[in-house]
Amino acid sequence: MDVRFSSRASTQTLFAQVYEYIWTRIQRGEWKEHEKLPSVRLLAAELNVHRLTVFKAYQLLKEEKKVYVKDKSGYYVHPGGAMPLDNLDSPIVSSYVQKSHLSEIHKVPVTYQFSYALIDPNLLPNRFFSEYVKEIFDLYPKVLSSYSTVQGDEELREALCRYFMDMHRFHLSPEDIMITSGSQQALDLLARMLVQPRDAVLIERPTYSAAIDIFRQLGAQLIPVEIHPNGYDLDQVEAYMKRYKPRLFYLNPTYHNPTGYTVPAEQRKQLVELAERYRCFVIEDDPFRDMYFESEPPPPLFSYSVEGYVVYIRSFSKYVAPGLRIAAVCLHPSLVSHFFTVKSLADNGSPLLNQKIFLHYFSSSRMQQHIEKLRTALNVRKTIMEEELSATAWRWNSPAGGLNLWVKLPESLSMEALLAKSIEQSISFVPGSICDPLKETKSWLRLSYSYISEKQLREGTKLLISMASELAGTVE
Amino acid sequence: MDVRFSSRASTQTLFAQVYEYIWTRIQRGEWKEHEKLPSVRLLAAELNVHRLTVFKAYQLLKEEKKVYVKDKSGYYVHPGGAMPLDNLDSPIVSSYVQKSHLSEIHKVPVTYQFSYALIDPNLLPNRFFSEYVKEIFDLYPKVLSSYSTVQGDEELREALCRYFMDMHRFHLSPEDIMITSGSQQALDLLARMLVQPRDAVLIERPTYSAAIDIFRQLGAQLIPVEIHPNGYDLDQVEAYMKRYKPRLFYLNPTYHNPTGYTVPAEQRKQLVELAERYRCFVIEDDPFRDMYFESEPPPPLFSYSVEGYVVYIRSFSKYVAPGLRIAAVCLHPSLVSHFFTVKSLADNGSPLLNQKIFLHYFSSSRMQQHIEKLRTALNVRKTIMEEELSATAWRWNSPAGGLNLWVKLPESLSMEALLAKSIEQSISFVPGSICDPLKETKSWLRLSYSYISEKQLREGTKLLISMASELAGTVE
Repeated sequence: MDVRFSSRASTQTLFAQVYEYIWTRIQRGEWKEHEKLPSVRLLAAELNVHRLTVFKAYQLLKEEKKVYVKDKSGYYVHPGGAMPLDNLDSPIVSSYVQKSHLSEIHKVPVTYQFSYALIDPNLLPNRFFSEYVKEIFDLYPKVLSSYSTVQGDEELREALCRYFMDMHRFHLSPEDIMITSGSQQALDLLARMLVQPRDAVLIERPTYSAAIDIFRQLGAQLIPVEIHPNGYDLDQVEAYMKRYKPRLFYLNPTYHNPTGYTVPAEQRKQLVELAERYRCFVIEDDPFRDMYFESEPPPPLFSYSVEGYVVYIRSFSKYVAPGLRIAAVCLHPSLVSHFFTVKSLADNGSPLLNQKIFLHYFSSSRMQQHIEKLRTALNVRKTIMEEELSATAWRWNSPAGGLNLWVKLPESLSMEALLAKSIEQSISFVPGSICDPLKETKSWLRLSYSYISEKQLREGTKLLISMASELAGTVE
Repeated sequence: MDVRFSSRASTQTLFAQVYEYIWTRIQRGEWKEHEKLPSVRLLAAELNVHRLTVFKAYQLLKEEKKVYVKDKSGYYVHPGGAMPLDNLDSPIVSSYVQKSHLSEIHKVPVTYQFSYALIDPNLLPNRFFSEYVKEIFDLYPKVLSSYSTVQGDEELREALCRYFMDMHRFHLSPEDIMITSGSQQALDLLARMLVQPRDAVLIERPTYSAAIDIFRQLGAQLIPVEIHPNGYDLDQVEAYMKRYKPRLFYLNPTYHNPTGYTVPAEQRKQLVELAERYRCFVIEDDPFRDMYFESEPPPPLFSYSVEGYVVYIRSFSKYVAPGLRIAAVCLHPSLVSHFFTVKSLADNGSPLLNQKIFLHYFSSSRMQQHIEKLRTALNVRKTIMEEELSATAWRWNSPAGGLNLWVKLPESLSMEALLAKSIEQSISFVPGSICDPLKETKSWLRLSYSYISEKQLREGTKLLISMASELAGTVE
């Protein structure tokens, strides 16, 4: 049987739930100070769990001085437990809400911004584009007064469908494409649609940190799959699929975030076969495909999909007009109606204006010209950062595309210390632990070379290196 | 103790969960045809529920021929249970996903569209607005290349803050406002942030149907509060707050959807006092406020809020440029950081372009002029529909604002039959049962007079009446 449900695992989960259930209601003041709490027997019956689970929860609450015992007559609310609204913390919010460290880091305004995996606005076709998009309002005079359909603008889905068929030989109809407000929303909606509590989810290690948060809040059990410069250990992946019967595998196989690694074509084919054999969905997040430096990357896993277990998330707008927030999701027809429902409850459809503006530019020749310029510019910036880093003993694999370097620093160095010091010096980066579902990764960091100018890149990288050297107490 | 957890209720819930757990895995093929299923004892231990619950689940699956028993040695997977991917149904998706009947009805294209509570695009300032918004790209040349902050554009939040303080005397700073992609997203995010499984949620009866779906998918127990032309029965509301300790009360007190009723000022004040006494959040959804016919409605509940339990959702863009999908959420400072996290996981922030366009128009004198024209136009359309309906014995309260009539038809009439027949005749409306958390409401329907032309309104209403008469077999 499925190892996820060894009584140990599930008891832990339930224990946490029961503990949270009691503590939340004490903090909300539903059970007042010195009020007698329900007996272990009663609460166990009401929550339909083992009495031992409730007993353990009460014990911990007692140790934490949140409840107290009065002469064997039962448990009582310890004074000072309830929180005033001014001082609310996580108990107020559902377990869904977790502090997203990345958004915390992004909140800090700095000069040397290595934590944004975003394109420098100066590399985007601003003024030209602004003139260009004005035509939209002549082309579609009612664009501002119309809602999009929940599925997304039909004209845009047709254009994307043609593109996917020509570029990647997808077997697709416009009906199999849904438009979302960026790939972040696509992933969030797919997770809400597919993942039930206790489902196993395979996830790359390291991975996109928001993906970890999204699957966690749904009660998924995350099974990390190490990603290496040459891809995954497929025997391990198959063993996991056999053993854990995972619901899905979330992956980012092309210029992977944060590592920049790319999964080879042969592995992609095999991976899809495994997914189909073990009925494991594959969510392929593919935002960096267009940002290659030398040659095009291998085809998407979706193009190898036969039985429909691969779901493809593609975002284009970030390279043209990130302000538009447009992504496309390609799904098997049997999944479209379900995605339709989650999307309609989430926001009733993405804004039509943004879809029309994007369509207008996407269909123009300017799009490809712009993307080519962007590739060159990013390659230059990557090279600059690598030149500077070559002065150190730090290790990284030079990526063939994408926006990031995944860099290994000396073990001795404390990432927390380095980040704190960096932010003082107006530098920010993403510490590797944030990208690790196990939160264990030490001495790795993600440096994005895509957001700041070549000059700033050089200065900031030098500055980061010198700070690290000081911290290490040794100039490398 | 809290009646929600009478063992009956919770056992039912768990039973459903266990049933779904087994059946889902059979359909996914994790347990193959004729494979022996885990014993009641084992599964009960693994899922940590009473054996009786597992036993009952197996019994039902057996009756449904999904599992079979072999000479007392246990339960086995019945052949033909597993579904091919082409024929997937709800088991593939999380319990989150429910068929949203409203979006089903909206999918049907009809001439006489009474089911859209939306503004007729012809009443919106299309051409003028199109010219006007082009200025945005000169004002903000980099608007398309910049992401908004997760919280929303600061300039827009400042403008909204001033507006709320001037118009409604809100005690507010721009930091207490979050921008979302329409009020639908605001409600979905607030629900995900505040509601935990088994929390009680007070909800109006009838109410906005998507709100029912959103709270249901989070495992909330819905407690319906009847709304009447003169508001709620506050003694009943207080009794519910005492008894169920509800997490929140979702309400739409001004030109309520679907009824058009408005909760009087005195009740608003008392309701906020109750909410604060019983620590029950109030989510005030206020999309129709500007659409009054004679005099302005009473102030929002938020303006009476002292302790911060009221959360205010306001959408403006639907009256100006629905295509923009902009709404504002006003929250107590202690809730902002939590909302920030759910919003960042959901989509990393709404598109900046839409926020700037809306800001630009919102700050102009044209906005108020337009809104005033709109009020008049809607009042005229409401009058037309009421003139036609006056020929019938149908009953409704003439609303003082908003977009809908909530109409009672003769008991004898079958809504399902009327809707089916209407759609044949290219008429659509919202049957009352969709708006009822108990799904019991018979012989009521919601007719929106806001979306189609005056001429169509007259024709469509006549046609609907004559069809109803035919169905009833009596001309009224």
